[in-house]
Amino acid sequence: MSRFCFELLAHTGSARRGRLHTAHGVVETPAFMPVGTVGSVKAMFPDMVRTAGADMILGNAYHLMLRPGAERVAARGGLHRFMNWPGPILTDSGGFQAMSLAALRTIDDNGILFRSHIDGREHFLTPERSVEIQHLLDATVTMCFDECTPFPANRDRAAQSMRRSMDWAARSANAFRHRDGYGVFGITQGSIYADLRHESAERLKTIGFDGFAVGGLAVGEGQALMLETVGATVPYLPEDRPRYLMGVGRPSDIVHAVRCGIDLFDCVLPTRSGRTGRAFVHNGQLNLRNACHATDDAPLEANCTCPTCTQYSRAYLHHLFNTGEILGIMLLTLHNLSHYQNLMVGIRRAIETGTLDQFIESGGPALRAVTAERDDTS
Amino acid sequence: MSRFCFELLAHTGSARRGRLHTAHGVVETPAFMPVGTVGSVKAMFPDMVRTAGADMILGNAYHLMLRPGAERVAARGGLHRFMNWPGPILTDSGGFQAMSLAALRTIDDNGILFRSHIDGREHFLTPERSVEIQHLLDATVTMCFDECTPFPANRDRAAQSMRRSMDWAARSANAFRHRDGYGVFGITQGSIYADLRHESAERLKTIGFDGFAVGGLAVGEGQALMLETVGATVPYLPEDRPRYLMGVGRPSDIVHAVRCGIDLFDCVLPTRSGRTGRAFVHNGQLNLRNACHATDDAPLEANCTCPTCTQYSRAYLHHLFNTGEILGIMLLTLHNLSHYQNLMVGIRRAIETGTLDQFIESGGPALRAVTAERDDTS
Repeated sequence: MSRFCFELLAHTGSARRGRLHTAHGVVETPAFMPVGTVGSVKAMFPDMVRTAGADMILGNAYHLMLRPGAERVAARGGLHRFMNWPGPILTDSGGFQAMSLAALRTIDDNGILFRSHIDGREHFLTPERSVEIQHLLDATVTMCFDECTPFPANRDRAAQSMRRSMDWAARSANAFRHRDGYGVFGITQGSIYADLRHESAERLKTIGFDGFAVGGLAVGEGQALMLETVGATVPYLPEDRPRYLMGVGRPSDIVHAVRCGIDLFDCVLPTRSGRTGRAFVHNGQLNLRNACHATDDAPLEANCTCPTCTQYSRAYLHHLFNTGEILGIMLLTLHNLSHYQNLMVGIRRAIETGTLDQFIESGGPALRAVTAERDDTS
Repeated sequence: MSRFCFELLAHTGSARRGRLHTAHGVVETPAFMPVGTVGSVKAMFPDMVRTAGADMILGNAYHLMLRPGAERVAARGGLHRFMNWPGPILTDSGGFQAMSLAALRTIDDNGILFRSHIDGREHFLTPERSVEIQHLLDATVTMCFDECTPFPANRDRAAQSMRRSMDWAARSANAFRHRDGYGVFGITQGSIYADLRHESAERLKTIGFDGFAVGGLAVGEGQALMLETVGATVPYLPEDRPRYLMGVGRPSDIVHAVRCGIDLFDCVLPTRSGRTGRAFVHNGQLNLRNACHATDDAPLEANCTCPTCTQYSRAYLHHLFNTGEILGIMLLTLHNLSHYQNLMVGIRRAIETGTLDQFIESGGPALRAVTAERDDTS
């Protein structure tokens, strides 16, 4: 068992090249974590997720507490063994999903009472229970239980929500059982208000965490405001701990957040897009359902070395989506995950060589900062 | 380019151990061909189909003529290249599907006029066009265009239908363009009438084919009658050519048909069952949706060496089906294909060593001949 620690290897401006050591292996940062919400990275064999380049994946305490149940996963030997992913796993605390997915939820200072979106059964999620669930799952990284402040929120509402989350952060940290190679991350809140983010960061530092997340973003505020908020938060986070921007995002979001000093990302985009026929390529995205691909013998991307691009044409992928074949989803998910991981490889190399700006510039429109007019998917 | 030829390696009674040499590789027989109807073995990467042990797969002229179109597949370099399966491919002629799937079909001695079940467009399929389609797909084995006689059919109807199919067989053989390593198979018809099957076999031998199929079975007649008909047909087929029992079947159907002298099989069961949560195991089948599997840490089969069984528990597979995760379909399809291919390995070994009866006996209920009372799935 190794210590849970974060090693800083290089800087370019605020961007950091790091290495996170955990009980379940090493995570090279900046890192993108594929999302395995309900105990599987959708439509992927775990060894392919690994081969694509992922070091760590995300699990979700809310989804797994409902199905199959945290105690049941624990009885199976934990989530790593259950889903055949021996590497590091970070788990969402469930607060976001309890608020966004569950029916009839009520929130007070003690926690969130909600009805399952699956079977309507009532559950009460508190910081203590969320951390316990994450322990039962054997999460390598436990996330604090927090309230994701709705957007937009006025200053008072945002402050009130953030302060509740900070109280919950203290309770989460208190409930966290320290074990070699395992860590617990705090989550800053405060919506788009720089002074609230500052206050939140200070509260979290006082409590003390192994890593610090920026939460409550990518909820409709747009890239510009998102990056501005990240930029206003990061300076107050400890230099020697990993920083995680939750639920972000598009390739452009990632590279610019890396430039602000973020180390960890997760997002459903590469997997979800794979299921709906959209492929990430250097110029942006392709919709494989479009008829223009029906006779195109080219791969998705000329220089991509993923199994999809080296073995299949756009015409074949179009055919698979046109006929509803599951293999289309599998091949496109594999490509999209590879595309994201290759982006992270490029980012890490660029930070090491001090060429991050050139890397972003050479990435073309897909990596360019998004202007408000065309910011349609954040 | 090798010659298309069938090598007989060993016998046990009527059962044969053989080797089919083709332009795209060797097929060890008795062989089971996974079904790749629309240009993909559903929910499987081709290399996994191969690793599971399949030498040859099945494609379908009807489905591929509708989507993406035979000419379009030809322009992509043929089906092997299009779908990334370099090995042998046998294609169904489309006659069966035109009659069973299409809307508003009319059949006469010239061919089958039908409306596509996809977009309602009208198509006319003749023996010549079916063979042309299979050429365009670059099928290693082309199947004669035939009429699959409905079941039940009285003697006169069965005779009339069979004779039409024999005329079509002659036209199919005439349309077939001979190329090194490629073959064309005739298909016997005649429903369950032994004398009609005999007449059909004689007609096909007179025409001359590289292989001989038994068609029009597994359509509701039950295993006993199916095997009786196979047993009444095989003696009239040439010893030196492969014999293919179309669309069959369950493990029990396969072992007993092998005992009658059949060399080739195809069936959607392992892949379709994988998509509906059913796993083939030595004792029969498991339904992974059943709650009894929710806490079962055992693999699907204790001695199975497939990736699903060596890496995942029944509890996890139950969870994946319970939550609708695509990975469940992938893992179960992989196991079922492996199970079928392992069955064929066992059959081949048993014929080589003269122990086929013992092999079937030791296979327990899953390989026992099916009695009429429990013959619910044929």
